Amino acid sequence: MTDKTSRRNFLASSFAAGAAVTVARGAQAATPDPLITQVQPWAQGFGEGVDATPYGLPIRFEDDVIRRNVEWLTADTISSVNFTPIHALDGTITPQGCAFERHHSGAIELKKEDYRLMINGLVDTPLVFTYADLERFPRENHVYFCECAANTGMEWAGAQLNGAQFTHGMIHNMEYTGVPLRTLLEEAGLNTAGDLKDKWIFVEGADASSNGRSIPMEKALDDCLIAFKANGEALRKEHGYPVRLVVPGWEGNMWIKWIRRIEVTDTPVESREETSKYTDTMEDGSSRKWTWAMDAKSVVTSPSPQAPITHGSGPLVISGLAWSGRGAITRVEVSKDGGMTWETARLAKPGEKMALTRFYLDTDWDGSEMMLQSRAMDDTGYIQPTKAQLREVRGLNSIYHNNCIQTWLVRSNGEAENVEVS
Amino acid sequence: MTDKTSRRNFLASSFAAGAAVTVARGAQAATPDPLITQVQPWAQGFGEGVDATPYGLPIRFEDDVIRRNVEWLTADTISSVNFTPIHALDGTITPQGCAFERHHSGAIELKKEDYRLMINGLVDTPLVFTYADLERFPRENHVYFCECAANTGMEWAGAQLNGAQFTHGMIHNMEYTGVPLRTLLEEAGLNTAGDLKDKWIFVEGADASSNGRSIPMEKALDDCLIAFKANGEALRKEHGYPVRLVVPGWEGNMWIKWIRRIEVTDTPVESREETSKYTDTMEDGSSRKWTWAMDAKSVVTSPSPQAPITHGSGPLVISGLAWSGRGAITRVEVSKDGGMTWETARLAKPGEKMALTRFYLDTDWDGSEMMLQSRAMDDTGYIQPTKAQLREVRGLNSIYHNNCIQTWLVRSNGEAENVEVS
Repeated sequence: MTDKTSRRNFLASSFAAGAAVTVARGAQAATPDPLITQVQPWAQGFGEGVDATPYGLPIRFEDDVIRRNVEWLTADTISSVNFTPIHALDGTITPQGCAFERHHSGAIELKKEDYRLMINGLVDTPLVFTYADLERFPRENHVYFCECAANTGMEWAGAQLNGAQFTHGMIHNMEYTGVPLRTLLEEAGLNTAGDLKDKWIFVEGADASSNGRSIPMEKALDDCLIAFKANGEALRKEHGYPVRLVVPGWEGNMWIKWIRRIEVTDTPVESREETSKYTDTMEDGSSRKWTWAMDAKSVVTSPSPQAPITHGSGPLVISGLAWSGRGAITRVEVSKDGGMTWETARLAKPGEKMALTRFYLDTDWDGSEMMLQSRAMDDTGYIQPTKAQLREVRGLNSIYHNNCIQTWLVRSNGEAENVEVS
Repeated sequence: MTDKTSRRNFLASSFAAGAAVTVARGAQAATPDPLITQVQPWAQGFGEGVDATPYGLPIRFEDDVIRRNVEWLTADTISSVNFTPIHALDGTITPQGCAFERHHSGAIELKKEDYRLMINGLVDTPLVFTYADLERFPRENHVYFCECAANTGMEWAGAQLNGAQFTHGMIHNMEYTGVPLRTLLEEAGLNTAGDLKDKWIFVEGADASSNGRSIPMEKALDDCLIAFKANGEALRKEHGYPVRLVVPGWEGNMWIKWIRRIEVTDTPVESREETSKYTDTMEDGSSRKWTWAMDAKSVVTSPSPQAPITHGSGPLVISGLAWSGRGAITRVEVSKDGGMTWETARLAKPGEKMALTRFYLDTDWDGSEMMLQSRAMDDTGYIQPTKAQLREVRGLNSIYHNNCIQTWLVRSNGEAENVEVS
């Protein structure tokens, strides 16, 4: 961490820039800024009362900070995806209202009273839990990211979508409250069911797609949560209300929404969602499967195509997100020249396991063109690969698990574009 | 922390209870649960598509989890307060949409383009910052609670309001992104303005009330933030869009919304908001002022009057929130007998400075009446006082800074009530 030193360096240069701002204002003294010299309309009357918004939405000036889908991407919106506006967010928490959705048969409405969770298969006592039952078990709170396996998938072939929201927005990061899956499995009497290390669970949701997935028992007993709150409040309908599975660090497709059944099995089910989908087709046509963990990855969210530089040269905050499904982010580096040289970014906080990390590079931009990149490192020692490195190993036929370094060409006028580095 | 041991004890008893649930279901085999045995309507068709909610709201079944005001409390809603539904939340993050509001002249609408922040007074160079200027300084991210000084104020006289939302809901906890106030003060050339330790700043907002407050320079240079994001996205209108002051651990009235001016002074201003208001009237009629820090406090959020026990005796999760404006929570204890005996609660995470801490007591309720209390301890060694202890020192004339231990009488039928312990 170069927090202190980079700050001091930045300030040394920003003092000068700050002074320039002041002088610029001073030079405009002949036409004084009415926002400073006059009493403003919003100080001359009353605003809205405390009964105006029992549940509030963003102010109307922010109405472009929303989830967006790409219309040509899928045949129908009920089996589709929308994208988190990460280019416009900061910090690490994603509000539920703008956290991406991915459905296979649409977001269903399921009341708490109608909710049931069955645990069956190789257990001592098959159990059915109501929502009220779940609330009686010890709860935990954890902040985790959830990333769709197809996030950045369009980039395999080349620079496709012009904006961090679309290239990297199938991700969100929330504080979950729930019951460890281990607790419920133990409640069903798993301990006496034989050698656990060869066992699996098969999980499915209450929607029409059911979206069944197999999860090895080791993960099920490690850190999975049966979650009913996100960022303090009930899950939203589109995120699995009233209960979803949280599978920290693993691809979002496994985070079963409206989870209705957990079957303990001695083999994986090899379901549609883990055979024809959510496998990576290699160059020779074979499939790479059980690619559950999301490898370390990062992206510069600002500047980026949807968040151009509008203030010209001088002090510039370059910011972005980094994450790893295998542990905590330990370091993020930023390149302005397409990967030839790298500077260490400042992490807003030390990286936390399977959670988004915000990074900043406080820099002084000379106004010349930049080929902006970021690369993440995690506590396993893994380093985010270039697109070329990834293609060399995995070819060009994949949809899923593209964690390559992203490049934004930032022009002298501050506009940015998604480009390939040769 | 008794995490492991209390968990194990709880599980030992909940196994039995869990088994009871199963047996109960088994006994109902003659009338099988159609939610288990039949294909449900929500699995027979499609749900909502990804274009349905570009910015989402909670599901309609949760429409009682909202901010609420108390109509008789104030003459008008533009100078009033509403309350966070803490009885229905879990974890620590408060979504902006249900985070309490307190206004003195209503929530104003102020565009980023129209935003100006002036720093003047005893500085080398008075400066005016636009919103775009602020975005060019190095940012930090921190989770902090914001508590109104009047939170729990109605309780001075006795048990008044029946619900944690109303007794303790003038609090929220968010991840803020902003520029350290210190950075901007230094930009204005504070370093050459003489002996800092005697200096003050006077801060005011752009609304009609302006809500001016004096803050000692030591705090201003320590941890205050000029914040523009909360929980990742833009501040909501009602929380000061586009920019508010964050004064960690100190009373919410000082967290100036729509902040427009910071004047460096050599004395406090003694404004309306720190003389006739936001002082504590003592027994002898004198005023206790400069009571900025919010002392350590806690409350059981569930069970509570708005969150009764509906499942009868057996395993019960008692949960609540603890916080301290002077540091981090180190320990929370729960009493079921009105303070005669205490059990150590499990903290969901180690306490963090000036942020909400979630606590749980995983217990086995025998169905008898409880006088539920919680008490918080912080890393200064401070212990949350009883109501009697607080009244002894401060009398009964105060409105502000009531951090006494709260008591809920929980009846055998699970209903809870706000009561006084004699």
